[in-house]
Amino acid sequence: MDLTPSPLARPFPALPVIDGVTLRVARAGYKAWNRSDLTYVELAAGCAVAGVFTKSACASSEVEMGRAQVEQGRARALIVNAGNSNAFTGYRGREAVEQIVAQVAEALDCPGDEVFVSSTGVIGVPLPKDKARAGVAAVLGAESCGWEDAASAIGTTDTFTKGAAAAAFIGDQRVELAGIIKGSGMIAPDMATMLGYVFTDAAVDPAFLQEMLSKANEATFSCITVDGDTSTSDTVLLFATGKAGNAPLTTWDDPGADAFYAALHDVCRELALLVVRDGEGAQKFIEIAVTGAADDASARRVGLAIANSPLVKTAIAGGDANWGRVVMAVGKAGEPADRDRLSIGFGGTWAARDGQPVADYDEAPVAAHLAGQDIRIEVDLGLGEGRATVWTCDLTHDYISINADYRS
Amino acid sequence: MDLTPSPLARPFPALPVIDGVTLRVARAGYKAWNRSDLTYVELAAGCAVAGVFTKSACASSEVEMGRAQVEQGRARALIVNAGNSNAFTGYRGREAVEQIVAQVAEALDCPGDEVFVSSTGVIGVPLPKDKARAGVAAVLGAESCGWEDAASAIGTTDTFTKGAAAAAFIGDQRVELAGIIKGSGMIAPDMATMLGYVFTDAAVDPAFLQEMLSKANEATFSCITVDGDTSTSDTVLLFATGKAGNAPLTTWDDPGADAFYAALHDVCRELALLVVRDGEGAQKFIEIAVTGAADDASARRVGLAIANSPLVKTAIAGGDANWGRVVMAVGKAGEPADRDRLSIGFGGTWAARDGQPVADYDEAPVAAHLAGQDIRIEVDLGLGEGRATVWTCDLTHDYISINADYRS
Repeated sequence: MDLTPSPLARPFPALPVIDGVTLRVARAGYKAWNRSDLTYVELAAGCAVAGVFTKSACASSEVEMGRAQVEQGRARALIVNAGNSNAFTGYRGREAVEQIVAQVAEALDCPGDEVFVSSTGVIGVPLPKDKARAGVAAVLGAESCGWEDAASAIGTTDTFTKGAAAAAFIGDQRVELAGIIKGSGMIAPDMATMLGYVFTDAAVDPAFLQEMLSKANEATFSCITVDGDTSTSDTVLLFATGKAGNAPLTTWDDPGADAFYAALHDVCRELALLVVRDGEGAQKFIEIAVTGAADDASARRVGLAIANSPLVKTAIAGGDANWGRVVMAVGKAGEPADRDRLSIGFGGTWAARDGQPVADYDEAPVAAHLAGQDIRIEVDLGLGEGRATVWTCDLTHDYISINADYRS
Repeated sequence: MDLTPSPLARPFPALPVIDGVTLRVARAGYKAWNRSDLTYVELAAGCAVAGVFTKSACASSEVEMGRAQVEQGRARALIVNAGNSNAFTGYRGREAVEQIVAQVAEALDCPGDEVFVSSTGVIGVPLPKDKARAGVAAVLGAESCGWEDAASAIGTTDTFTKGAAAAAFIGDQRVELAGIIKGSGMIAPDMATMLGYVFTDAAVDPAFLQEMLSKANEATFSCITVDGDTSTSDTVLLFATGKAGNAPLTTWDDPGADAFYAALHDVCRELALLVVRDGEGAQKFIEIAVTGAADDASARRVGLAIANSPLVKTAIAGGDANWGRVVMAVGKAGEPADRDRLSIGFGGTWAARDGQPVADYDEAPVAAHLAGQDIRIEVDLGLGEGRATVWTCDLTHDYISINADYRS
């Protein structure tokens, strides 16, 4: 596996300390590698939690348990295993997760359903219980570490570590948010699940925390795609320790709720875009802005149809302003569209308007835009007020090499 | 463009003469090439017609007109333009089609709605009316030709010409079917629309002809995919001249209706599979058999989710028995599935059964199967009686080269 950083990589940013969050990493040895692969996050008592999970019908035991655990709204610990996704492993996989939960819950003297577990890596191999037990024992006694160590330990085929931060005022109280994420395909189930974790010291009621995370997810993580292949393990968890001491947020009407949501949205968006920037084989970052759709949800589906089209993605890889392929992708999306109202542009230059090529279309500025690394495709459906922005990367020879030439 | 025949190519078969069908080709010069690119099929008066068309919301004028024309059930002529799809060209594109229809209708002294037109090639450039007018004049006066000439003239980036035949008895009367098709992506809108035409001398009522074509389409053309990108121009037309002299078929209860349908299905299936065999960059032909689904439609959607997964397709390209990626694709299909009842095999060997890896799984026969050219993936959902078979090809470096490295 080639771990040369993606040409679209970003350096790891400075992330704030979040009061009530302690990070530790250790080496369980889930694969034959010389690196930390087990991450433990200890959370202050009373920490609120919210989560969004893959919609896969074949989700892992970790996801199944996480979906149930998040209902009660509180978390004391997070364990992340890297190198083995433990997906499609039947009762043996389930037993491994239950063992980890019991071991951590005993150490913290907390209910088992407050211990969250994620796993990422090869599919179809039950997580080895002996390695997990020894690894958890080691990590419980490890020194605390910083964000970049944790972001690195949760990674698998990621070519760079990924984090993001934001802050907001709730009343007079400044609150901090810090997030880490891993992923380099929207999913490659034997190597590249997307796992994201956001931590804040804000005090937020769990039900409202879930409402905000679900809303932010719709506009960020749910608007990215690398290859259209949805993971069996995708998970985003949001932990709010409450240590900032603000008046707890419970509804959108609370002072500071909008500011906190904006900061949360920013962190989620940045984390999501970092995953696209590490998309397998990516050479170009592509933003697709859809306007004039019947509604926002329709705009998002049209955007994702474009973002998932191998013909659009290869055209961008080749620097080809092939707007005919964008027309094709709009047409196949299954959403309301009218050929004769459709307009398509690249980087601010319309190539086609109202169902026809622009008469005096000058391809020079478009070619210059497409020669760059950050590409923007504009699509106006001319029907209504619905809009959405989605993000993807191009489809290159390196994607084929990573996924075909490499024999797992 | 590399026109080396696909490694999966099949030689053009012997096709029968169909009484009431006359083929002619000419060179309109839609592109700067030295080959026939305009095909004209004259059909005996009273010929019945049925058609299925792309579901794209951005379909070409040809498709829009074809959808309307087929309603009245009769056809006297078919014109196919190669090198320019005339899609997304607004009123100018529409005018070009109307000109062709008028020119042919006048020559044949027939209603305009009995003249069918298809076009394939670059998108967004109105079909040049002067070239079309001269080309149609030339083809109306050309010598008649054979099936292979016509199959070649409708092609664009196809690497080999494609045809199929079958015969059936309706009562004591033998009837013949012959079909030709072009396409090397399910669609690449600037180069590779799928256009298919089937001709028979059988006498069949137009409404029943449509019913049979729609049914055959569901199990054949609608079950193939190269890249999941749906054309703005895909068209399949079925013409029945009635010259065989059989008692006209009007319902499924008529003697010979089942036999005729079986022959029609065989021709459609063979034509569809030939398109997969010319899939852009294809090195391996993949059949995906889904059983145990909630119903047949669900099985087909699961099969297509697998067939369209870039991770599954690259795994097959790499000879990798990566059944975890098949699990992923089943999970994302949005269809009823139960992880713990799911079984996956390759070429007759189960790799996973009932949600777990097979305990004594021997990868040797699977590896041998995947080293071959004809690959079979078996998926049993363990839920019901629904089943479907879909076909695709692998995703290779050549797909990227054809669609990214080549600047249109």
